[in-house]
Formats: sequence, structure tokens, C-alpha cells
Amino acid sequence: MRHTSIPDVQASPSNIKYRITRVGIKGMKKLVYVKRPGSSEIIALPTEIDMFVDLPASQKGSHMSRNVELAADLVEISRKRPVDALENLCASLVKKLLERHDYATFAEVRARADYFLEKEGLSGRREEEPYKLIAEARGERDGGVRKLIGVEVIGMTACPCAMEVVRALLGKEEGMIPTHNQRNTTTLMIEVPEDADVEANDLIEIVESSFSSPTYGILKRKEEGEVVIRAHENPRFVEDVVRDVLNKVVERYRDLPDDTMVIVRSESEESIHKYNAFAERVTTLGELRR
Amino acid sequence: MRHTSIPDVQASPSNIKYRITRVGIKGMKKLVYVKRPGSSEIIALPTEIDMFVDLPASQKGSHMSRNVELAADLVEISRKRPVDALENLCASLVKKLLERHDYATFAEVRARADYFLEKEGLSGRREEEPYKLIAEARGERDGGVRKLIGVEVIGMTACPCAMEVVRALLGKEEGMIPTHNQRNTTTLMIEVPEDADVEANDLIEIVESSFSSPTYGILKRKEEGEVVIRAHENPRFVEDVVRDVLNKVVERYRDLPDDTMVIVRSESEESIHKYNAFAERVTTLGELRR
Amino acid sequence: MRHTSIPDVQASPSNIKYRITRVGIKGMKKLVYVKRPGSSEIIALPTEIDMFVDLPASQKGSHMSRNVELAADLVEISRKRPVDALENLCASLVKKLLERHDYATFAEVRARADYFLEKEGLSGRREEEPYKLIAEARGERDGGVRKLIGVEVIGMTACPCAMEVVRALLGKEEGMIPTHNQRNTTTLMIEVPEDADVEANDLIEIVESSFSSPTYGILKRKEEGEVVIRAHENPRFVEDVVRDVLNKVVERYRDLPDDTMVIVRSESEESIHKYNAFAERVTTLGELRR
Amino acid sequence: MRHTSIPDVQASPSNIKYRITRVGIKGMKKLVYVKRPGSSEIIALPTEIDMFVDLPASQKGSHMSRNVELAADLVEISRKRPVDALENLCASLVKKLLERHDYATFAEVRARADYFLEKEGLSGRREEEPYKLIAEARGERDGGVRKLIGVEVIGMTACPCAMEVVRALLGKEEGMIPTHNQRNTTTLMIEVPEDADVEANDLIEIVESSFSSPTYGILKRKEEGEVVIRAHENPRFVEDVVRDVLNKVVERYRDLPDDTMVIVRSESEESIHKYNAFAERVTTLGELRR
Repeated sequence: MRHTSIPDVQASPSNIKYRITRVGIKGMKKLVYVKRPGSSEIIALPTEIDMFVDLPASQKGSHMSRNVELAADLVEISRKRPVDALENLCASLVKKLLERHDYATFAEVRARADYFLEKEGLSGRREEEPYKLIAEARGERDGGVRKLIGVEVIGMTACPCAMEVVRALLGKEEGMIPTHNQRNTTTLMIEVPEDADVEANDLIEIVESSFSSPTYGILKRKEEGEVVIRAHENPRFVEDVVRDVLNKVVERYRDLPDDTMVIVRSESEESIHKYNAFAERVTTLGELRR
Repeated sequence: MRHTSIPDVQASPSNIKYRITRVGIKGMKKLVYVKRPGSSEIIALPTEIDMFVDLPASQKGSHMSRNVELAADLVEISRKRPVDALENLCASLVKKLLERHDYATFAEVRARADYFLEKEGLSGRREEEPYKLIAEARGERDGGVRKLIGVEVIGMTACPCAMEVVRALLGKEEGMIPTHNQRNTTTLMIEVPEDADVEANDLIEIVESSFSSPTYGILKRKEEGEVVIRAHENPRFVEDVVRDVLNKVVERYRDLPDDTMVIVRSESEESIHKYNAFAERVTTLGELRR
Repeated sequence: MRHTSIPDVQASPSNIKYRITRVGIKGMKKLVYVKRPGSSEIIALPTEIDMFVDLPASQKGSHMSRNVELAADLVEISRKRPVDALENLCASLVKKLLERHDYATFAEVRARADYFLEKEGLSGRREEEPYKLIAEARGERDGGVRKLIGVEVIGMTACPCAMEVVRALLGKEEGMIPTHNQRNTTTLMIEVPEDADVEANDLIEIVESSFSSPTYGILKRKEEGEVVIRAHENPRFVEDVVRDVLNKVVERYRDLPDDTMVIVRSESEESIHKYNAFAERVTTLGELRR
Repeated sequence: MRHTSIPDVQASPSNIKYRITRVGIKGMKKLVYVKRPGSSEIIALPTEIDMFVDLPASQKGSHMSRNVELAADLVEISRKRPVDALENLCASLVKKLLERHDYATFAEVRARADYFLEKEGLSGRREEEPYKLIAEARGERDGGVRKLIGVEVIGMTACPCAMEVVRALLGKEEGMIPTHNQRNTTTLMIEVPEDADVEANDLIEIVESSFSSPTYGILKRKEEGEVVIRAHENPRFVEDVVRDVLNKVVERYRDLPDDTMVIVRSESEESIHKYNAFAERVTTLGELRR
């Protein structure tokens, strides 16, 4: 083909002069290679990535293909030198976005990946349980980059209210009382300061120990019974799950600063209703410490 | 605009000569007006419709816009003269599809709608509970049209196995024993012969009475306890739900012929696992009567 | 049953003393009856509702069943006296939530409904096109209630950049040039001040006229060509769609105050990529007027 | 805990005597390690697995925990000795299911995995593109096991009909004419006979070359133009995509027997409509060869 001057329509002036808060791509799938400090294992995370910058009122469009190239560059590098954390990949992308989009004052990257963690089941057998990793980073041109790491964990809640009502209806003082229980999905996200380290596996541990009971892939009959008993010994509202997670976060991360963001969300697929129960706390470590 | 001869690319011969089993549209949303025989109420069902015909090896394409026009015609008519059943709308569409696509030997229409049914709750208060209606019709050019009506119902199952294991672990002989319970979604579809009538509301009643317990929008504390107690008095596997539905179908539809298709599917969002339990029976009334 | 004192576990003191930002129910389905001022038509909207309040650190749980009862009450009333707008139902629910949960300082209600609007197609034939209505209301105990109404609209975008690149590659100066085009979903939400009125149908009109072309259920062959031509005469980035919507909002709602919230989001299912393009502006009318 | 006899409720006789067609688990997530013959690379596939057997009328329940254990066993083995194909894992699971459920006469396993394949883009740069792998196996106790491997691929279709209509409306004889184009998802599944080998990468190649154009993660501006041009040089209905895939399957798999099952499905997210276009062929190689 002849030498052609390829037009750059995005760079032309905009007709309608309004700033755009976020412009970019959603749902790009990439295989990201991660190797945690202290671990010898390289894991390949199938990751869904969103990447945004802002756009000044004066410019027609954002060069989205640059987002894709930047992601492909870093992901390719990760094949040889695995990244040490998904949130650090997001933070690097934020910095690169601000370099490549010189008109942008803000950049944001979100990533979501399937993640498997080997855990010991009730029978002592080790098995890989499925989770989701969530990472985010946000940066301003004239400021630093803030990054968060999070996990989405499935567990079980047993309702303390229905348990006491059933106890009253049955006229029983003692013993283990039935209640409704259900699948619960709880998300914990925590900000990771520049020179700090937060292990996703620790977050999973914090959430999983805050349910009425964790759940398992493999459960033999006796172990199924044990999970039911444990859940009924620890009946919990979604509010209780959120608070227990918050409590453990405060204890575990004493060294993180007061302005560290913490987000906890818990949603139960109520067995006795067709809708879900939900609780959420969006806060900082400082507020929690007061 | 000048008189233009609009080309009909679909009608041109195909280069690669293979028959197409199904070709058409998926996910068209329409508001369908329904009035059941014997009822004075007209309900407007927001309905998602799929419409397919087959295509002979010799022809390049199917005229999908005809599908859309046919649906729009019948739906428009339903605004003045409501259809008496969603499956009859599907059957009419199948006949029209075979008329308008003279090259087709087969036609299929599926519809899925949000549906609300007023029911009496445990407190005696009447409330609208949400369901899904599912209708299908299939026809061959040289044969009749077969049609099905179905419902998707959410309820609650309590596990009979874990209950007995917990009983053994607790060393109890008597009394109400905890078990894991969860949200279950069960679908029942049944063929409706040409001159027969099957009420979707009856199908909902059949499914809802086959769970460990139905679930409700409004439950005061005492009623929550009653639902839990009822569920624990009726522990059921997904297999039990399917069989109970089948049993009631056989009893309720004694007049329907042996070749009437029956499909039952039950899926439980297991509270103690991260995956679902599932059971299904695809059969005919004749097989069930044996 | 004997007289039983039904325990109120929610009202008991919490062991772990953290405030909960939001607690309540998600995904409750209700049929809401709406009649717009000036219209004689009552429409039944199948609506999915979320309802939240906050919870003080001192109290164990929120009484979620009150949320459900409140919704059922208002929805039941709407069967006899239809609500005049979905956002007003949300605002009423916010007020009732603050009354019934005397420990709450904040309440939030979100609703999402299937909505059909009759429009004239290119052939002059009138047809119902599908949309989504979105309504929200938020209130503080010692402040007013703010409410938003929004619409989600599907249309078509054609890429202006690829069009110019193709023009250069083909070495053509004139004529209609191909480009990639795709399905786009755009959401517009706008705050409705206490004594103002915003018509959802106007919002639909604003969004639909901001695409490269609206899309239609019924299109005969000639009309398909006309839609393609219109889209290629109006190539637009997602950024352009957002800005065009903002521009029309500023023009249409001159009477609304400066602090009126406006949110526009546009997402294109890029035909040449496996991921989506996205643009968003979250702002106020005041900022837009500057 | 004392020695307890753990009850086996599933093994007890059923009260309601109907056979169950399929009973088992859905949506279990596992990380499966695969190493293709001839390749040195081990890939870890995050896989969603469904496992079913049938259940005789006489028995109350199926022992679903055995399904989970069998899957965990084979997946654990795959960590040391990677499986050579996902469909072979399914076939092994079918055989194990029939062994462990001695009451079953039928077993079925389905698996679905995220999959990334490195491909050369238009600029010569290699990049990993995302796909889905689908595998199935079905077996009867007194017969063999049939297994299928499949791929789900995203690409682009440009409509040949609207192109010709636009040509007529514009009164042009020559040159490249705009049309509507969109994201298309096409699935190809093919049976793999016992002693044969079908490469998923070949299936991806077959599907990807049957679109109007493949799509890419990274496209610089010039390459975006080239994709648009290629798509407009190859306008295709969903019917055309299905037939082109079938043609390539017949050519590529001359050695496979006549009873080899072939399934092709193609769905376009029509840019000019709010619903999708769909075509499907379910057939055998023998039928296609006639």
C-alpha cells in the first residue's frame, strides 16, 4: 500500500465542549502471570481488565488503542518476569496511562480474576477452592497512585433471628435449633499503601473465618454434618459478617495508616425469600480505629 | 427517493450448500397482552421471544425481518384482543412463520415472561409473588404444532441427608434437627394438546407445594420461624422435588394423552457448597403412568 | 399455638461495634402501577427494588422485613391509586424507611423496570420499543430526599475514526465510507427536584437522538439501508454520545437548579474488538452550564 | 466424637417411584492442568464442570459428593500428570461416575474453560486472544463413551443484505459500500472418536476464518481500517458463517467417521436491532458429506 497519512480523529477538537469523567475500555481479557514475594509458584490469572482516563472538554476523543497496547506490553512482560501482585499491575498501568494520554489528569484501572487457593478440608485432604481477586488503582497527574486489593469469597450464613423464633415456637430452651441458612458472597477490599504489602490469601482467610461456616468442594457425609453444626453454632446476619471482617482487618493491619480505605460487602441468597439480604461498610482504617 | 429496486440477497442461491437447522432471532422484547378464559383481568407480560425456521441448502438466507413483523402483528392484535395463553401466541407464530417462509419445513418459537401471581401469605395478607412463564411451540409443515407451557418457581429445600447425619452426630433421637437449606429454582414444562387447557397458575401451585417450603416476600418474625419449621418437617433432595412434581402432574392431568411431554428441572444453590445440586426428568405422561 | 414471646434479635446490642453504611434487601420483584400526569394510561411495571438504611454501631441488626412490608404497602396502594412516577415511589419509600427504622440516619431505594414505549418506525408503523427505567432516592433523617430518574436505551454507533482511516486507505475523497458500527447501550440519569417534573419519555428521546442512529424492532429491507446510511452520516464515539446527551440535557432542563445531578454512561459492544468502549460523565447542571 | 454410624439417606428406597434422567452437580470450579501431545507447555485451565448420572426409580437419592471427589481426584492427578485434552478428562470422569454410582446406567460430564491462544495480529505482533473451550462426554453402562470438544469464538459479521440495499439507495455500482456490522459469537463442537485427535486450536482457526473478519485485542489505527475493509469484502449472514464452518469441518476432518456429531451455532449482536440474529446446525459428518 502507498504511504498514507492515517488521520487522527480523536486528536481533533470537540464540537461539544464537555469534559468526560471516564473514557476507555471495559472487559478486556488477559492472562496475567503473578509470582508473590516469598513464593516460588507462578500462577496464570485469567483477568478481566477495565482501563479509563478522563478527557478534557477541548478534545474529541481518547486514544483507546493505547490502553490496549499498554496492557498488552505489561502482560507480555509478566510472562517473563511475573508481576508480584495484581494491584501493582493496575498501578503500573495507571502511571503508563497518564504518560501516554498527555491530555488526561486522571487514570483508573480495575482488574478481576479467577483465583484458586489450596486449602485443607475437614477430612485433612487438601483441595483447591475457587475465589475471585479484585484489584484497582487510581491516579491523578499531580498526585500519587492509590491501589486496592480485594477478594470475593463464597461461604454460608445461618440466621440468628429465625433460630431464636424457632426456639420460641418449639418451646425449647436448650439444644441446637434449626434456622434458615444460605449461600453468601462477601467482598473485602483494602487499600495497599505504596510501601506496604497485603496478601490476598490473608484477606480470603479473614472473610472465610467470618461466615457462619466456610464452605467446601469436597465434603463426605460426616463432614457435611459438621459444617451444618458449625454454622448453627455461629448464626450470623450479613451485618455480623461485615462487622467481623472489619474487626479482623483492624487487628491484622495495625501498621497501615489511618487513611487506608476499607470496603466490605456481604450478600446472602436468603433461602426463605426470593430476594437477597445485603450489608456494606465503606470506610477507612482511621474511622474504624476510633 | 427514486424508485429503487431493493435487492433480496436472502433469496439468492447459497454458495455453500448445507441445510440450516434453525435460523432466526433471539431476545426480542415485546409486551404481550393476555386474558385467561374465565378471568376478566388483562395482564401485560413483558416477554422475551425467540423465533426460528429451518433453511434449505439451496437458499442463501432467511428473511428474519418477517419474523419480527409477524410478532409485531400478533402482539399489536393482542392489545385489542388479548391472547388467551402465551403458548397459543407461540403456536400462532409457528403457523405464520411456516406461511411466510415458504421454503421452511420447520418452525419454532420460545417465549419467556415475568409473571406475578397474587397469593395469600402466612399472615393471611395477599401479596404478588414473582414467577417466570415459559412457552414454546414447534411445528412441521406437514404436521401439527406442538406447544408447551411452563413455569419457573423459586422455593426452599432442606437437605434430608445432612439432617440425619447431624442427628447422629448430636446423638439425638427426637426433635427438630438442623440441616443445610437453600434457595431452589424449579422449572416445570408440560405439553398442551390442541383441544386441552393447562393453567400456568396450576403449574405454579404444583411446583410450589413440592419444595420443602414455598418462600414469601413478606414474612414477619413468627412467620419466618414457621417457614423454617415447615422446611425442616419436609426435608427434600432435588430428586425429591422433581419426583413430587411428577407425581402431582400425573394426578392432576389424568385426561391428557400418553404422548404429552413433561419436563421437570430442579436446581439448589447449596448453602454448604460453592456449586449447585441439579436433577431433571424429561419424559412423557405415558412413561410416567407405567 | 400458645402465646409466645417472639424474640427480636435484631434489636439486641451488637458485640462488635461498627456502623454499617448500608443494610437491606436487593432484587425484590414487584409489579408497580404507574399513571403519568396528563396520561390516562395505567402501566404495570415489573420492577426490581433494592432498599437500604444505615445501622448504628450499637445495634445488632436491621429489621429487613419492615423494608419488604413498606414496599408491599405502597405497591398495593399503587394498584388502586397508581403512582405518578417510579422515582416518587422510591422517595416515598425512603421517607417510610426513616420512619420505621428509627435508628437509621440514612435511607436509599433503587428501582429498575422493563419499560415499553410506542414509537413510530421508519415505515410510519407504530411499534413498542423496549427500554429500562431506573429510579433512585436517597434521604438523611435531618435533610431532604433527593431523587433521580433515568433510562437505559439501546442504539447504534458508527466509528468516526475508522471511517477516516478507511477513507485514507481507499484513497477516496468523497462518498459514503464504511466503518465499524455496533450496538450501544447508553444510560442517562437526572435528579428531579422536589417541585419539578422530568418525563422518562423525554430522556429516552434525548438519548435516542444522540446515537449515530436509533435502532428499531421492525425494519424492512429499504429501512435497514436507511438506518445504515443515517448511522454513517453521523459517526460517533462513545464520547460524542455522552456529550450530545449532556448538551440536550442542558438545553431541555433550563429551569432545573444548578445542583441537579446528571449522570451519562455510554458503552459500545465494539464489533472489531472483543471488549467494549465506555465513556461516562458524572456531574451537575451547574458544572455543565459554566 | 464417639463412633457414630453415619446414615446413608440417599441409598434408602424412594417413596415416589420415578426415574431421574439426570442428577448431579452444576458449576463446580476447578483448575485443570492440560498438556497437548507434541507441546511442552502446561496450561492451567480455570474450568467450570457439570457432572450427572441417572437414578433408578427405586432409589431415593444420588451420592453427589462422589462426583466431587472423583473430579478432585482427577484434577489433583492432572497437577502432576497433566491431561492431554479437556474432553478426555470428561470421558474419564464419565467412566469413573459409572463405576462409583453402580445404580446408574448413564453418565454425562460437561466442562467449560477460559482459554487464551497466542496469535499474530495484523502488525505482526503476537498477542494472546481470549476464547472458551467446551468439552462434553456421555456414556451408557453397556456402551462406549462419546466425547466432544468445542470452542466459542468472538468475531465480526458485516451484513450482505443491507450492503446491497445501501448500494441501491445510493445508486452506486462500484466501490466499497457501508453496511451494518457487529460482534458475533460462534460455537463449534465436534465429536472426537476414541482413537482420533481433534485440536481445539484448529477449531478456533476454522471458526475465526469464517467470520467477515476476525477481531483483535490490539489494533492500531491503520489496522482498524484494514479490519473494516476485510469485513466489507466478506459480508456474511449468520447462515453464511455456519455454512463456512461446516465446509471447513468437512474438508479438515476427512478421516473421521460418518456418525461424528457436529454442532455449529452463530449469534450476531445486530447493531441495527435490539435483538440478536442466530443460526444453528446440529448434524453428523455423514449427513454433511452427502
